[in-house]
Amino acid sequence: MPSSGVTRLILLADLCGTFVFAMEGALAAIHARLDVLGVMVLAFTTALCGGIVRDLMLGAAPPMAVRDWRYPVIAFVAGSIAFVFYGFVRQAPRELLVTLDAAGLGLFAMAGTEKALTYRISPFIAALLGTMTAVGGGTIRDVLLATVPAVLRVDVYATAALAGSLLMVAGRAVGVRAEVAAVAGGVLCFALRMMAFWLHWNLPVIARP
Amino acid sequence: MPSSGVTRLILLADLCGTFVFAMEGALAAIHARLDVLGVMVLAFTTALCGGIVRDLMLGAAPPMAVRDWRYPVIAFVAGSIAFVFYGFVRQAPRELLVTLDAAGLGLFAMAGTEKALTYRISPFIAALLGTMTAVGGGTIRDVLLATVPAVLRVDVYATAALAGSLLMVAGRAVGVRAEVAAVAGGVLCFALRMMAFWLHWNLPVIARP
Amino acid sequence: MPSSGVTRLILLADLCGTFVFAMEGALAAIHARLDVLGVMVLAFTTALCGGIVRDLMLGAAPPMAVRDWRYPVIAFVAGSIAFVFYGFVRQAPRELLVTLDAAGLGLFAMAGTEKALTYRISPFIAALLGTMTAVGGGTIRDVLLATVPAVLRVDVYATAALAGSLLMVAGRAVGVRAEVAAVAGGVLCFALRMMAFWLHWNLPVIARP
Repeated sequence: MPSSGVTRLILLADLCGTFVFAMEGALAAIHARLDVLGVMVLAFTTALCGGIVRDLMLGAAPPMAVRDWRYPVIAFVAGSIAFVFYGFVRQAPRELLVTLDAAGLGLFAMAGTEKALTYRISPFIAALLGTMTAVGGGTIRDVLLATVPAVLRVDVYATAALAGSLLMVAGRAVGVRAEVAAVAGGVLCFALRMMAFWLHWNLPVIARP
Repeated sequence: MPSSGVTRLILLADLCGTFVFAMEGALAAIHARLDVLGVMVLAFTTALCGGIVRDLMLGAAPPMAVRDWRYPVIAFVAGSIAFVFYGFVRQAPRELLVTLDAAGLGLFAMAGTEKALTYRISPFIAALLGTMTAVGGGTIRDVLLATVPAVLRVDVYATAALAGSLLMVAGRAVGVRAEVAAVAGGVLCFALRMMAFWLHWNLPVIARP
Repeated sequence: MPSSGVTRLILLADLCGTFVFAMEGALAAIHARLDVLGVMVLAFTTALCGGIVRDLMLGAAPPMAVRDWRYPVIAFVAGSIAFVFYGFVRQAPRELLVTLDAAGLGLFAMAGTEKALTYRISPFIAALLGTMTAVGGGTIRDVLLATVPAVLRVDVYATAALAGSLLMVAGRAVGVRAEVAAVAGGVLCFALRMMAFWLHWNLPVIARP
């Protein structure tokens, strides 16, 4: 059983990440000219589907997003804010959106890895599930918009989440305190994503002949 | 434990909705020029995947569609009818198809909400799961056809399912008998969908500047 | 409880199928010009998502691919081989790839059907779940690449998996030994797929007027 400090940390990370990702999903929906219901669906999907798939894989059904009304409510509040204040939100500089997204990525990767470890999943797979928690919602959003998911196209994104998750499980494996390992992993994920954005890092591709 | 009257009502609604949605999925497959196997896959997907996802989220695995052979058999029978009698079925007026679809929508929303309540999910989330039961199969069908799901584009559709589901949980909350609340919710869903179709209702969209 | 011989057969079939399908997923990713992370994601998805969905439907969470580190490791090794030795792998004749794919199809259909029977699912639905195990990963891969899944377009593919799975449950129903029924089903699936490839078999389509 996790210490209550870790539990509270997961919860807080999860709720903050939910808000940020829901707003992003709502903006993607507005840009695709969907109506207000479509905006809500994509806010919900982007924010919560990564965690839902993780919980299903852990055998932790019903998922938190279904069991705890705070998750869908936060997603819908964020979606409503994006819809009502779109004229204001769309003036936000791209850098701010990328920064918030990188923060959400780190929060979700940390929360997902921690939850998988709590369910006694092996560390390597826990890191994979943490990564999937972080990128799963956005992937399903892109599938619903009938595009190849950004995670498969964008330079260092899932990679940052995976690196942070791996650092976290490695730290735990060598005896670092859970809270410290989680924060270190989240910071690494955030830092890698931001550096990739500013320095235009790319992963290797095979040039098609 | 639900009363046996409610159980039978859910089952009947589910089986009828399965038939209608399977036929729709089959028609979509035929229009996309898929072969007979593709027609069966889309009949199955459209009719059953909403309920499968709901059951997985409720922790009710294996889902009814896997546990009870009547569900897949009904889906395949409907798919076969659509395939074999296509020359006849395709002459059906569009109004008839929309009416049957609206009926299926109401039946599935009712059955999904009821089942979620049976699993002691909070009413607001139960209504969301009911809506997802109603629109989930069609969403996955559209994803398989590589198009943006109709539910995200079409005027009042998921909204009708959500309104019906919310009426149903609200009725239950104020003490209305379960059967009455379910029928009222289903009727509201059906009526809203039909009115939206005839009156060309649309939800608000943000005009992209 | 299955005999240990059957258990070992399922495991071996599953691990071999995982390798073959992961390599295919990786090649699809390279052809779509994805980066190395995208290659790993599609290797994992193609190889493991069919089994993951099957396990979720059986209520067997966490799925084997999450519980047993050998599955993801084999998928990533196959993905890495495809990426590093792409110059070599891409010269492989198309016939070899189709043959390996047909073998993977048979292995997965057999393993999936066997696992469903172990969970006391009715034979008809077990055969459907076996088929889904075989074609599910490739379907999700194609969805991520934003194309209509090959399984819906290609002549005899899922049909071969379904025929093999049905033969297997039919054999079991009439008292054939489990190992024999499994091998017969796998061989039928493989043979049908190869014959369809060489003889350009097609399933009936309704010509759109």
